[in-house]
Amino acid sequence: MSSRKALRFGMVGGGPGAFIGAVHNRAATVDGLATLVAGAFSSDAAKSREQGEVYRLAPERVYASFEAMAEREAALPKDVRVDFVSIVTPNHLHFPVAKAFVERGFHVVCDKPLTTTLEDAEELCRLVKKHDVVFALTHPYVGYPMVKQARALVQDGALGTVRKILVEYSQGWLATRLEETGQKQAGWRTDPARAGAGAIGDIGTHAEHLARYITGLEMEELFADVSTYVPGRRIDDDANMLVHYAGGAKGMLSCSQIAVGEENRLTIRVYGTTGSLEWKQEDPNFLYVRHADRPMEVYKPGHAQLVRAAQHGTRMPAGHPEGLLEAFANIYGSALRVMAARRDGDTPDPLDLDFPTVRDGATGVHFIQSALESGRKRDWVDAAYNAPE
Amino acid sequence: MSSRKALRFGMVGGGPGAFIGAVHNRAATVDGLATLVAGAFSSDAAKSREQGEVYRLAPERVYASFEAMAEREAALPKDVRVDFVSIVTPNHLHFPVAKAFVERGFHVVCDKPLTTTLEDAEELCRLVKKHDVVFALTHPYVGYPMVKQARALVQDGALGTVRKILVEYSQGWLATRLEETGQKQAGWRTDPARAGAGAIGDIGTHAEHLARYITGLEMEELFADVSTYVPGRRIDDDANMLVHYAGGAKGMLSCSQIAVGEENRLTIRVYGTTGSLEWKQEDPNFLYVRHADRPMEVYKPGHAQLVRAAQHGTRMPAGHPEGLLEAFANIYGSALRVMAARRDGDTPDPLDLDFPTVRDGATGVHFIQSALESGRKRDWVDAAYNAPE
Amino acid sequence: MSSRKALRFGMVGGGPGAFIGAVHNRAATVDGLATLVAGAFSSDAAKSREQGEVYRLAPERVYASFEAMAEREAALPKDVRVDFVSIVTPNHLHFPVAKAFVERGFHVVCDKPLTTTLEDAEELCRLVKKHDVVFALTHPYVGYPMVKQARALVQDGALGTVRKILVEYSQGWLATRLEETGQKQAGWRTDPARAGAGAIGDIGTHAEHLARYITGLEMEELFADVSTYVPGRRIDDDANMLVHYAGGAKGMLSCSQIAVGEENRLTIRVYGTTGSLEWKQEDPNFLYVRHADRPMEVYKPGHAQLVRAAQHGTRMPAGHPEGLLEAFANIYGSALRVMAARRDGDTPDPLDLDFPTVRDGATGVHFIQSALESGRKRDWVDAAYNAPE
Amino acid sequence: MSSRKALRFGMVGGGPGAFIGAVHNRAATVDGLATLVAGAFSSDAAKSREQGEVYRLAPERVYASFEAMAEREAALPKDVRVDFVSIVTPNHLHFPVAKAFVERGFHVVCDKPLTTTLEDAEELCRLVKKHDVVFALTHPYVGYPMVKQARALVQDGALGTVRKILVEYSQGWLATRLEETGQKQAGWRTDPARAGAGAIGDIGTHAEHLARYITGLEMEELFADVSTYVPGRRIDDDANMLVHYAGGAKGMLSCSQIAVGEENRLTIRVYGTTGSLEWKQEDPNFLYVRHADRPMEVYKPGHAQLVRAAQHGTRMPAGHPEGLLEAFANIYGSALRVMAARRDGDTPDPLDLDFPTVRDGATGVHFIQSALESGRKRDWVDAAYNAPE
Repeated sequence: MSSRKALRFGMVGGGPGAFIGAVHNRAATVDGLATLVAGAFSSDAAKSREQGEVYRLAPERVYASFEAMAEREAALPKDVRVDFVSIVTPNHLHFPVAKAFVERGFHVVCDKPLTTTLEDAEELCRLVKKHDVVFALTHPYVGYPMVKQARALVQDGALGTVRKILVEYSQGWLATRLEETGQKQAGWRTDPARAGAGAIGDIGTHAEHLARYITGLEMEELFADVSTYVPGRRIDDDANMLVHYAGGAKGMLSCSQIAVGEENRLTIRVYGTTGSLEWKQEDPNFLYVRHADRPMEVYKPGHAQLVRAAQHGTRMPAGHPEGLLEAFANIYGSALRVMAARRDGDTPDPLDLDFPTVRDGATGVHFIQSALESGRKRDWVDAAYNAPE
Repeated sequence: MSSRKALRFGMVGGGPGAFIGAVHNRAATVDGLATLVAGAFSSDAAKSREQGEVYRLAPERVYASFEAMAEREAALPKDVRVDFVSIVTPNHLHFPVAKAFVERGFHVVCDKPLTTTLEDAEELCRLVKKHDVVFALTHPYVGYPMVKQARALVQDGALGTVRKILVEYSQGWLATRLEETGQKQAGWRTDPARAGAGAIGDIGTHAEHLARYITGLEMEELFADVSTYVPGRRIDDDANMLVHYAGGAKGMLSCSQIAVGEENRLTIRVYGTTGSLEWKQEDPNFLYVRHADRPMEVYKPGHAQLVRAAQHGTRMPAGHPEGLLEAFANIYGSALRVMAARRDGDTPDPLDLDFPTVRDGATGVHFIQSALESGRKRDWVDAAYNAPE
Repeated sequence: MSSRKALRFGMVGGGPGAFIGAVHNRAATVDGLATLVAGAFSSDAAKSREQGEVYRLAPERVYASFEAMAEREAALPKDVRVDFVSIVTPNHLHFPVAKAFVERGFHVVCDKPLTTTLEDAEELCRLVKKHDVVFALTHPYVGYPMVKQARALVQDGALGTVRKILVEYSQGWLATRLEETGQKQAGWRTDPARAGAGAIGDIGTHAEHLARYITGLEMEELFADVSTYVPGRRIDDDANMLVHYAGGAKGMLSCSQIAVGEENRLTIRVYGTTGSLEWKQEDPNFLYVRHADRPMEVYKPGHAQLVRAAQHGTRMPAGHPEGLLEAFANIYGSALRVMAARRDGDTPDPLDLDFPTVRDGATGVHFIQSALESGRKRDWVDAAYNAPE
Repeated sequence: MSSRKALRFGMVGGGPGAFIGAVHNRAATVDGLATLVAGAFSSDAAKSREQGEVYRLAPERVYASFEAMAEREAALPKDVRVDFVSIVTPNHLHFPVAKAFVERGFHVVCDKPLTTTLEDAEELCRLVKKHDVVFALTHPYVGYPMVKQARALVQDGALGTVRKILVEYSQGWLATRLEETGQKQAGWRTDPARAGAGAIGDIGTHAEHLARYITGLEMEELFADVSTYVPGRRIDDDANMLVHYAGGAKGMLSCSQIAVGEENRLTIRVYGTTGSLEWKQEDPNFLYVRHADRPMEVYKPGHAQLVRAAQHGTRMPAGHPEGLLEAFANIYGSALRVMAARRDGDTPDPLDLDFPTVRDGATGVHFIQSALESGRKRDWVDAAYNAPE
């Protein structure tokens, strides 16, 4: 619980049946930092209204289009209108929605991948800078305390110099042609027009970001073996990549949606010159640290010996498992506390300057494009990228 | 998110520094089922006010005593006053607080153990019945989906007839005399006057309830070896018990707060005539099921093959870890949906008649007293108990 | 491989179909320390011959009775006759066989439990002393390197003073009345006349010995809840015990042969004042060590930081799993190196004075009798015991 | 134990301090199938003699060179000379030693990789065929029962059609320049002249063979990112590869000797159209099988529901862990039983035609060369290969 006044927010997307809208709402509100007051939940006015009723919003704050919402919210008095919007639409709408709100000075929390083209991503970077808004991208997995501890171990040199990074995100839910069954998620996520990219965009970007977050290393070049396993599918559903990082580290990155039996197997291992670490998303409260000359250590949340960033993201005493909701809420929490501090004319707590930004989003889009390009060329491609400041 | 109107609730206890108040608040509100509108957070008026400001409550709804709160809330119009209260005080206050609210017709969600004497517990049973209120006891561990699946497997006979139950709750936080350091939790939890019992009351009751919830079996007799390991401590900090259940099953129950290095090691195994199961609270999203003649099976949440009760308690797709907050919210959720259905004149969903009640609480208090009595006598004691209907 | 000349040995028991004979033979020979040259494998002369042919023994060294074997081997020249015998018969024969060989000055390696009565066990202690022979009892589980490391951690005070010991051996193979199907193992192991005791004697003794080996603590009193779950069975198939150890430690000991789905779940946890450890036989190459104020450590074999006793028992570089055969071979190895040193007039390596002895066997028999007595009386019994030196 | 007469064997390599010689000796003899009777343990005559004494060999059967051994053993009477030799020298000697013995009609068990050039490997294939000897290559990891079960599951279609294979062998022992410290293993294994290849040859081949053994799929093309991380080292110590298999499966293969903290992390996952499996060498007695629509299954050895090949390779009842020694002994066991059957004029048991052959060795050498070539070219290379029959 924060002692600051809660922020007001709106949501774009997240209509009836979309689980991710509820996740964002819980993440935004679970710590009392924000209250949902508006929404354009669907481009179908009836569905948007239906969802607005679920959230018990005032009917006049429920919109049938994000354009209408942006326009009218901007026209409301400052102490009534939303402070920020959460964008949980299919990928192709992230850009126009974000643009509409950023240009009107609203803060934004946006689902990943940021956009479906690099041009759009870079324009967003410029707009965010120009309008000086807070922009957070929901790579929720870096919100886990043990990921923060991992990052600190690397930064503090506890592993020596990083040599090898193995990161993977494997799912099995698209092992068959689920999109033909009318399943909504599968529908848009395998539609090139709405998703932009398949497995690489949906989950490969999480893997890319996780590796970058923990190690602080930027990709330099990559070689991707991109596949579409399921006959008839029009988008990638699996990719295996070789990666070279700045400074000489190398590694592999794999993402798959056809790995039958896997749910959300996001795992990372980082090998340095003197130590290594391992973390697994499905068992997120354990961090394994190995050295050559002593027993493996297993870190868990809730202990005083952890770095402050890890303690900051834990709500319960040790031994009470926390899950993805709390990780998600940590991303929101940091972004929202920064927004609230700005609103109140305060300097944000440096511990809160720890959420994926619009520049992370542009880097992710560049990664997607590099991977697809390498797959097409069957060759190494330059993966170095520096998003517009 | 529910389509019903949210309930209003108040909290008794949970003042500054008490982590459990925040847990209850999150659990009550995370699904949009309730809003905190009142509280008597501390018997120190300043502290109660301070906490009320954190929750941004109207000052006139923040009270310096539960008696004042009960009286004044009862005097408020029906559509303003709280629908229920959450009781998160030290144990010795559960009874007077619950009594004050039940007698005025408020629903109650109360932390365990229910009371510090069996007389009080039984009086509460009668009051709840007389005033016909909903009363939920927060044994949150039975809110985990895999615990619900375990219960269903036993009920459906998937393990045959239950023969042996091994249940344990081990913690290490009281391995030293922490209560001497001024740590508040340790202070009241090791004070006989405020806690009533030590390890047995604080965590042994969770173990007792978990075993009963999963197997449906009542204890018949028990033999407890009760210890106080830490010199100078005035209350039990460890107990090992032999248990006989109705119908012939036997087992062991162990609880400890001096098990150094353990956090919240609550685990259970149930052996039947044809199969067995195992569950571990610190890794709650895995349920292990064994049979003699086939490979062990590992159940996880989020799958269509699970029983409805398990699916009911899952908010995310498979592979997104959920933790204690969600388990806690499942206890609240069921109780609150029942309260809301009553308010709205509807029949509750039978799936929601799945939360620990005041009678479970009385059974737990009887268990505590039996264990302490057995420990004193160094002999078997009758553990059979039938709480007042 | 040792540089000493291999010992010659004979086997009593271990006829066709008895898996344990092959285990003993492999354990005795895998390091080149001994060669099987004689045997009385069965009281059925034809079966004994059949087994002798499998081992390619000289026919005149294959006997139809242990009495004949003892007598004739003793009459052979010193450099021809066996140096020791391995006794792998059903329990009721351990005593007469051991006696016959010890009295003739042969060293003995004997399966557990030592005998079926305490009188016999104590007589054996005296005989071993009188005839000054080496006598090893095969509790193979203490041969695992990680068990030796555990013992060293306790001895070195790495856990502080031991407070609580939880040890368990659960199997499921006798969950049904297997003895009625003609299965040979099940037949004699559930026959009171041949086995003496059931689960307590067969596996409870392993648990008792493991706890004593690791902690060095003797039992002082115990309370046993002894069961026979399977209808018609004439012997215990499950027991749960409360145990008080000398010096104030307490704990539970459980053994079961009706724990369906379990194979050889022998596990131990030891909680001290400052740290704790955990080990699991089915994953024997991992030792978990916990402290209040730092991450859990996971020890594995093959590392230079381990105690010498743990390194002594490892044959491969780290990461090459070793199993029960090697643990068994470590018990044999120590005993055989002591025998060989004596033969050669040398002082044994102190590292080899690390195998269960006849006095451990008598302690185990006393434990069995105490447990059965407590079960009958439904009361605590004195479990303190001091075997004859 | 076999009822056949034991074979006699000799060893080339495995002098003082070489752990692998002892491993081969134990693996060859633990089941009573063979007896070591001769050896050329070192090219240093004194060291060879020293080792011969450890094994207590007749001095005239201990040789100072493999040439002398081959020549003289061939001149011994048929019932005296060795039946086979085990070759455990550094890699560059595998070829001349194997050639010398194969040409004289001796069976051979040879460590991997087969040779340091493909020409040599193919010549060996032809010689083995010409002289009609049994030739086994020790990829011991396919001797584990759970690997055999995995292979059977794939062959039986339990996973559908294989789509993706992730195989990895990570070690950390060469993370520093150990070869400079005089450590003997590190010395020859990082010397291009004696090892031929580094990580790829030493452990990459195990990974390649494991994937081929389980799935039955041949590589078609591969792309390797080959690294030497440790400054000054003259050989590869890490490689990450993309692999395309015949029939459309794809995957990654990684091997590393600089993965600090890892011991022998050899793991494989195979994803098919309907199911997937996972196995980890350091926990070899567990096989994980996943399907989309039911709980994960965990297979363990020793059960009647396993395929015969898996049961064939298990010596103990379920729950008694077996390790690498037994896996190694399974490779030896199959090869030796085939040799013995031939000697005795019998048809081998088809279950024993299950050991890596000289053709597997040639395939492995081709793989090493392809990987090194791809690494040099930074391009895909053709990896399809058909060893000479």
